[in-house]
Amino acid sequence: MTDNTLTPFFQPRGVVIVGASSNPTKLGYGVARNLVNSGYDGAIHFVSQKSGNLFGRPVYPTLAEVPDPVDLAVLIVPAPGVTDALRDCAARNIHAAIIVSSGFREAGAEGAALEAEVLRLAKLSNIRLIGPNCIGLLDTHLPLDTTFLPPPMPQSGDVAFISQSGAICAAIIDWARGQGFGFSRLISLGNQADVNETDMLAAVAEDEHTRVLTLYLEGVSDGQRFIEAAARVARRKPVIALKVGRFASGQRAAASHTGALAGQDAAYTAAFEKAGIFRAGTSEEMFDWASALTSCPLPKGRKMAVLTNAGGPGVIAADALEIHGLTLAELGADTHAALASRLPPAAGLHNPIDMLASASPETYAACLRLLLDDPNVDGALVILPPPPMFSAESVADSLIPLIHTSPKPVVVALMGETLIQKAAECFRLARVPEYRFPERAASALAVLADRAEFLGKSEQIPAPLLDIDHPAAQAALAEAKPGCFLDPEPATRLLAAYGIPTAPVKLARSEAEAAESVAQLGFPVALKVASPDIPHKSDLGGVLLNVQTAEEAAAGFLTVKERALRARPDAKIEGVHLQRMLPDGQEVIIGARRDEQFGALMMFGSGGVEVEGLKDVAFALAPLTDADAEGMLRRTWAGRKLAGFRNISPADAAAVKDVLVRLAQLAHDLPEIGEIEINPLSVMEKGAVAVDVRVRM
Amino acid sequence: MTDNTLTPFFQPRGVVIVGASSNPTKLGYGVARNLVNSGYDGAIHFVSQKSGNLFGRPVYPTLAEVPDPVDLAVLIVPAPGVTDALRDCAARNIHAAIIVSSGFREAGAEGAALEAEVLRLAKLSNIRLIGPNCIGLLDTHLPLDTTFLPPPMPQSGDVAFISQSGAICAAIIDWARGQGFGFSRLISLGNQADVNETDMLAAVAEDEHTRVLTLYLEGVSDGQRFIEAAARVARRKPVIALKVGRFASGQRAAASHTGALAGQDAAYTAAFEKAGIFRAGTSEEMFDWASALTSCPLPKGRKMAVLTNAGGPGVIAADALEIHGLTLAELGADTHAALASRLPPAAGLHNPIDMLASASPETYAACLRLLLDDPNVDGALVILPPPPMFSAESVADSLIPLIHTSPKPVVVALMGETLIQKAAECFRLARVPEYRFPERAASALAVLADRAEFLGKSEQIPAPLLDIDHPAAQAALAEAKPGCFLDPEPATRLLAAYGIPTAPVKLARSEAEAAESVAQLGFPVALKVASPDIPHKSDLGGVLLNVQTAEEAAAGFLTVKERALRARPDAKIEGVHLQRMLPDGQEVIIGARRDEQFGALMMFGSGGVEVEGLKDVAFALAPLTDADAEGMLRRTWAGRKLAGFRNISPADAAAVKDVLVRLAQLAHDLPEIGEIEINPLSVMEKGAVAVDVRVRM
Repeated sequence: MTDNTLTPFFQPRGVVIVGASSNPTKLGYGVARNLVNSGYDGAIHFVSQKSGNLFGRPVYPTLAEVPDPVDLAVLIVPAPGVTDALRDCAARNIHAAIIVSSGFREAGAEGAALEAEVLRLAKLSNIRLIGPNCIGLLDTHLPLDTTFLPPPMPQSGDVAFISQSGAICAAIIDWARGQGFGFSRLISLGNQADVNETDMLAAVAEDEHTRVLTLYLEGVSDGQRFIEAAARVARRKPVIALKVGRFASGQRAAASHTGALAGQDAAYTAAFEKAGIFRAGTSEEMFDWASALTSCPLPKGRKMAVLTNAGGPGVIAADALEIHGLTLAELGADTHAALASRLPPAAGLHNPIDMLASASPETYAACLRLLLDDPNVDGALVILPPPPMFSAESVADSLIPLIHTSPKPVVVALMGETLIQKAAECFRLARVPEYRFPERAASALAVLADRAEFLGKSEQIPAPLLDIDHPAAQAALAEAKPGCFLDPEPATRLLAAYGIPTAPVKLARSEAEAAESVAQLGFPVALKVASPDIPHKSDLGGVLLNVQTAEEAAAGFLTVKERALRARPDAKIEGVHLQRMLPDGQEVIIGARRDEQFGALMMFGSGGVEVEGLKDVAFALAPLTDADAEGMLRRTWAGRKLAGFRNISPADAAAVKDVLVRLAQLAHDLPEIGEIEINPLSVMEKGAVAVDVRVRM
Repeated sequence: MTDNTLTPFFQPRGVVIVGASSNPTKLGYGVARNLVNSGYDGAIHFVSQKSGNLFGRPVYPTLAEVPDPVDLAVLIVPAPGVTDALRDCAARNIHAAIIVSSGFREAGAEGAALEAEVLRLAKLSNIRLIGPNCIGLLDTHLPLDTTFLPPPMPQSGDVAFISQSGAICAAIIDWARGQGFGFSRLISLGNQADVNETDMLAAVAEDEHTRVLTLYLEGVSDGQRFIEAAARVARRKPVIALKVGRFASGQRAAASHTGALAGQDAAYTAAFEKAGIFRAGTSEEMFDWASALTSCPLPKGRKMAVLTNAGGPGVIAADALEIHGLTLAELGADTHAALASRLPPAAGLHNPIDMLASASPETYAACLRLLLDDPNVDGALVILPPPPMFSAESVADSLIPLIHTSPKPVVVALMGETLIQKAAECFRLARVPEYRFPERAASALAVLADRAEFLGKSEQIPAPLLDIDHPAAQAALAEAKPGCFLDPEPATRLLAAYGIPTAPVKLARSEAEAAESVAQLGFPVALKVASPDIPHKSDLGGVLLNVQTAEEAAAGFLTVKERALRARPDAKIEGVHLQRMLPDGQEVIIGARRDEQFGALMMFGSGGVEVEGLKDVAFALAPLTDADAEGMLRRTWAGRKLAGFRNISPADAAAVKDVLVRLAQLAHDLPEIGEIEINPLSVMEKGAVAVDVRVRM
């Protein structure tokens, strides 16, 4: 899977800076300084129009004069000079370049043209590019620093950060320095003319020093490729993404409920879920999680113990654990007795364990050991405000050996600031995750449990459905006009071709045809106006239910048609559709929308006209496994209700999952479909039938 | 409103420490040290069994020997000695004591008895108590420090912190020190034997140096008093609460949907809403908000501008603004043109304004001025990662004068850590709120908008309803048995007495009575089994709808009774209730549950049996104003849908609000009712009728 063309970025035998400068106010100076100071032990060369000396090294006037070896070029020349510099790279047999220069796509049409030319040149000469308009690349282990960021380099660590924003890199490095948080690699991707987030994710995952990958994303270049690459990486190393721009794109006008509810952000969430990427809510959360994931063992379950020397923070922690989907472990009787014998009578012996303010470093350690030894406990959150009688660092010292040898995760809420600095340093040196507030510690513990669950699930690949009548599906689709709705009859045949049960529909063009059709369908029937121009028929009275006789059907034909014409005088009315009504069932909605990036995005939830109001819906990307479908049911009331509730009889959940899997296959197979929606799917005690389906091309 | 008995805590002419110690490992030493070092300029006295000298002052063997003046005693003697110490206080005419000692209620039954005795003694001698088992009190302006916390005192500021947890105080002071965050007063309440959170809230609000009050709460002592006191304070000064223990109490078994959904935490949220208290989600958020509320002017609306020198953080900020209910301001054409003339062509001129990395301090200032001058902008979020070409502090210096003179709020996301320390100090000194991440800055800006809205709403007091037939209500209630459900007939009369329209109900004890009753009621009717033992009748087939003739009614009588007896053979069946069915309307639920602390908690939302699954509900405390009721409608889909949606016709929202206000009055007037629930309330185009009501005493 390794992309060897990216190797020179990470293992160059020599680096050349084209546009190095001896003027300390220039970026070309900053890059030269950082590269020299980074401790990089390969060859370092400088090229500049002004020859001379820089950091004790000669400055060459042209790339051609630079001696071997040189595998990587960093270009900081003005934008119009980049093409020439690339030609020089090609001539010098360099196949990797970081273009720091700005003035390309981000600067308007002229810049975009220049960027296209740069990319063309690079492809021609087999040169891989990072940038343009980027901060560059930094590896603390090699070490190598091609950025112009203010020194010192970030602390060495095992979290990689790949970013589509350069400014974020600068801020994050500086913030991390204050947190004692280290990085393995840091890559700013800039305009991504060539190397994009997916390429880099796969490449950095190969780095032996990187244990967790973090991503700052504004978008992805190719959704399918991204999911596949990320899913492969996530099985081996945790990936955390901060995806921004949730609201930026707005919601485009949608013709179906699915279209209205299934926005771009829902597609990203579904894509991350499919790939096994953790989606962080904030920048801080991303690194809080990374910190725990790099250094903690994973818990076997979600039952956590809280150990504190003060009640208040214990209660905060208990709340936060529940908010994050963890539970307070019920301690075994032995543990309880042992704690009782160790602690003063006023101590709180029910999880959270409150040892009281007098707790010594030894008490902290003894109680933590008891908790970790309890088989009912999957992990622990230790709360350490500045202890009144001891130093926080003495508690840290007593806990660290225990935490190191425990197969269960322990995170620490180290509360305060100045009084806990030394303890913070002890924990950081020992790689024990510590957080200023219990809420953040609880969130980190939860991500460990999520990771354990993800790895515990076997990798499932949707099994191909073998009973699909592809010719029939194609025949049904052939009747569609682009941008229009497919007529109910072919739409019904389309579903049937994919094995989705439907209630047969007949089109009546006259009162007589209506009377005749109902005789064939049987009673009762529903009448719906047949018009390509009217998507939401019931909104304007275009639906009549429970029609019981042929006479009623004939009269209903006129009623429905009149109502529709009154509401939409210019609508084309083709007649009235008749459909046999089904016994009462639970009504759910199943839909799919084509997402530009990620393909078919599936929606499941409470159906009916109120779906947009109740928003009881779940999303996932097609195709679906049975487990995916099961997950969508579990996340919605509509799905949970299928098991029955009060006087609502149980309904056929297996049939719903089957329809979900089949519709996902359909939407996945047929990209020409823009939106498809079954609303309602009527779910009976046995079986489920698509009552109404709308298909937009 | 001022409680003069608390004055000695905050303006003592002299303070005595009973139990002062010269042993540096004792708390009695810490308190003495802090009091002396605090700069308190009243008289300081020490009492201890070991006489001698401490910090250059004489130590008296008894309180009787201490010279005047002395208004406040701090007691740090072992718990059993506290009663004697209090007697000495009384003899010495001291009327305020802080009991630091532990070993009271928190230590078990014996301690609780001792605490009761201490309280009895204090009341007898008109001594007000803080504690026992507390850290004490600290005022940075007086100044006064009676705590034993490690020095130095927290920085002086204008935020008061009142806490039911002592350990939190220690951690928060230390954390705040690192953040450059100052306090006016800090009070640890301990066991609250006497002075509680409500007393203290009202007292601290009078402090001229306190501009914002923050509370750490695990519970309140008297809900009604708390709300009233807090509401008075909140009109003058912002109050922020961190209420913990959300999940601790669990959900007690409930007989109604309202009971099941309206937990203790919902009651606290409703109480804070009623009082105008902001409820913070985390400790950090509480102080983030406090920081903005102490120093920023309030915005006129929710339209915010984002100014950044980097795209990524700008996108993060835009997302965060939307998440917190703010909007991105649309800039005026003038502003747009002026920005365009100031910024490079590649700059982003649509809010968020991206000035690009080259932005100088002058550019920052000029652009911020343009944004603040735009009438479409209500406030601004400035993003400042370490600028590549300038120091962050030079940007701070250029922005501060502008922010100081602006009538609109400006918050700063100062990203990084080491490179922005100087800038952070500049902003802190200038009292400009700065946050490490854009997300936190956006949250602070939102609380400013919330505060402005709260102050903009006139204080509304629910108008008493004048048309209530109290004797009829009492008569209906008189038929109830405690712990049981009220029969449908008196329940209907109870609602009618409060002016809530109901569908009349008749009890039929036989088939013949059923046939007779329907003739009087008119058709169609609904039949419901009449049994005090069956709360959810439809669950077991105990309801028949749409009965059209007298014969059907007679037959239905038997059906319903049989079904009920089959499901619950031991249920007492009194017959069958008959009720005239109403034209189809929208169905909502309106309920009330008696909360131990806060009285009647009202619930409104989507009705039917699925209410517990859909959870489309809103809560508020009774009594309700029309605006309160309006708010409950706005917060739920059930309420918004009353305006009509697709083929759902508009329904009478005014009638729903009227029923909400009336049922709130009922629940407020009649505390003997444990739960009352109208489900459904059928809302027609004109009017709303309670179809089913359940009342539990």
